[in-house]
Amino acid sequence: MKRNRRDFLKTSGLAIGAASLSPSNLFAHQNMNHMKSSPLKFRFKPYTLQLKNVFTIATSSRTTTPVVLTEIEYDGVVGYGEGSMPPYLGESHETATAFLSKVDLSRFDNPFNMEAILDYVDEIAPGNKAAKAAVDIALHDLVGRIMGQPWFRIWGYPKDTTPNTSFTIGIDEPDVVRQKTREASEFKILKVKLGRENDKEMIETIRSVTDVPLCVDVNQGWKDKSKALEEIEWLKERGIVFVEQPMPKEQIDDMAWLTENSPLPTIADEALQGVDDVVKARGVYSGINIKLMKSKGMRQAHTMLEMARAFGMRVMVGCMTETSCAISAASHLAPMCDWADLDGALLISNDVFEGMRVIDGKVVVPERPGIGVKKIG
Amino acid sequence: MKRNRRDFLKTSGLAIGAASLSPSNLFAHQNMNHMKSSPLKFRFKPYTLQLKNVFTIATSSRTTTPVVLTEIEYDGVVGYGEGSMPPYLGESHETATAFLSKVDLSRFDNPFNMEAILDYVDEIAPGNKAAKAAVDIALHDLVGRIMGQPWFRIWGYPKDTTPNTSFTIGIDEPDVVRQKTREASEFKILKVKLGRENDKEMIETIRSVTDVPLCVDVNQGWKDKSKALEEIEWLKERGIVFVEQPMPKEQIDDMAWLTENSPLPTIADEALQGVDDVVKARGVYSGINIKLMKSKGMRQAHTMLEMARAFGMRVMVGCMTETSCAISAASHLAPMCDWADLDGALLISNDVFEGMRVIDGKVVVPERPGIGVKKIG
Repeated sequence: MKRNRRDFLKTSGLAIGAASLSPSNLFAHQNMNHMKSSPLKFRFKPYTLQLKNVFTIATSSRTTTPVVLTEIEYDGVVGYGEGSMPPYLGESHETATAFLSKVDLSRFDNPFNMEAILDYVDEIAPGNKAAKAAVDIALHDLVGRIMGQPWFRIWGYPKDTTPNTSFTIGIDEPDVVRQKTREASEFKILKVKLGRENDKEMIETIRSVTDVPLCVDVNQGWKDKSKALEEIEWLKERGIVFVEQPMPKEQIDDMAWLTENSPLPTIADEALQGVDDVVKARGVYSGINIKLMKSKGMRQAHTMLEMARAFGMRVMVGCMTETSCAISAASHLAPMCDWADLDGALLISNDVFEGMRVIDGKVVVPERPGIGVKKIG
Repeated sequence: MKRNRRDFLKTSGLAIGAASLSPSNLFAHQNMNHMKSSPLKFRFKPYTLQLKNVFTIATSSRTTTPVVLTEIEYDGVVGYGEGSMPPYLGESHETATAFLSKVDLSRFDNPFNMEAILDYVDEIAPGNKAAKAAVDIALHDLVGRIMGQPWFRIWGYPKDTTPNTSFTIGIDEPDVVRQKTREASEFKILKVKLGRENDKEMIETIRSVTDVPLCVDVNQGWKDKSKALEEIEWLKERGIVFVEQPMPKEQIDDMAWLTENSPLPTIADEALQGVDDVVKARGVYSGINIKLMKSKGMRQAHTMLEMARAFGMRVMVGCMTETSCAISAASHLAPMCDWADLDGALLISNDVFEGMRVIDGKVVVPERPGIGVKKIG
């Protein structure tokens, strides 16, 4: 039921009489009655991110990333979401379109019932994690906007305890690496992808121009635990602060041994998909890397963060190449994380959102309601 | 900064122009600026609950329960909380008063920073779980009121999936037990405290007047696993649906064996205190009983619920004897629980709140913002 002007004025009168109350409170009942009025509207469109530079990891190189942009509308309020689908993870514009075409949110008329809505989406088909994240993020944005608060605040987190974000220096010729490192002088921590032949050369090249802390992501590249430990000891001497996914995720016993003996924290990335993997990572890694595209969005990511902290594990929040939409969504976890790797939107030339910012190297979570984004494209 | 009347009217004008938007959204920025204005005010007072009947469990009998009632005020909005301190758990009016006298919330000017506020409270002294829950609940009530939404909705839970609440039939003479059972005809599930000599007599007495499902709480009363299994098999034949804390919490291997062999689900109660115990209970019990007075309030209880569900464990939400304040707070978890034991406020004659109701045996979560209570005393 939409409120008419007369009802609204009546409510306003009440609000004037109690002007020191937080206004949202006064409208609670209206909100609730209001909420039964209309079905959710869901829209999506494929979008291609243009990378500023060729992006190289241990297994591939590319210049674009396919994403899907989503909107969920309820009673005139629109929430925005995004799923990012780097090709090596198996999703694409085609799979996302096929999946999201089956999502019928008009069967729901209460956006707050996230549990039922996201269960429904999850059960449409297995996999499709990025597409599912795109729905989850848009729903969080919508619900946060209706409550008038950003998610870090709804989750009860402080704002100012966010870490610096790392910025990835791609694998390249030494001259290019030196140049890229110099250009990244704004960042207080740099990330280097290792797991190739030229690991030590990369580190030494970067160290020839900067002494900021580095972290490394091996993407499962080391197969032998003793050699991995030697590598880590070598890295420790050169100011590296942690090592992400050093060994294949299947080598659990080797990984537990490595963590036990490593002078640097080890972080699970490929080994960590769902909530259950947090328990499995305990005692095997020092910490976990939470990414919304692995956790199917913010809801499960939040649970994973709370679990890891209850277990005394370190937590980092990471990303794919994404617009500021999904990056901003992830940033609401950052106040409770030890490290952040939220440079995804900085790597693209055609962002369509404003949201999380990096100021003096540090993650600044947006304070707007919901995930805190503003559409600019 | 308080908004003056002129600012308010300006905002109202905006709202009229976009009347189909949820109003809270329009005020978000005002809320945020507003939020920096004033320190939190904290108040507490001891209160003694009068039980309608003498309450007998395996280890004691009593006619009153000491509780502490709390309020946190922020900018004219008041959140209510409560801690319940049944004497066998070690807290009292004296310990709660000593603890809460040290709680200085005036150092905080942002109620949304629950993480920092509750960490501060937790670190004042160890133990004092009910007193800590009293602060946690009042803070949740306050923040939910500011957001204009009840917590089940903030947590993204449905409203209507709440279970029936059990109602406890105290240990007594057969005639009294039959009378009490008849009086409890509103309830669709009854709870019986076992672990004494007269276990079978109690069950048979109740079964002589009703065939509603029963659940039993043994409070660690059975020491021998084989005899425990025999008891459970006997209970299964008589329509019992689950068994709470059958054996001492220290007998972990025996308990795992019992759960493995039991024809009824086993539920951890005394064995479950904090988040870490959820992991320990996995594989040892079929499920867990979450109580706010064990989990130090709603924040940790919510994490425990999400973890248990991620592990595929059954969940019940329980209580102490409490007013409708703490009971209502707990009820926001109920939509995601298999069972509820939220009869605490029904057992007392001097409730001072209205909130969660039991309608036709089922838990009805209040829809008011925050924990959903109204002060009546």
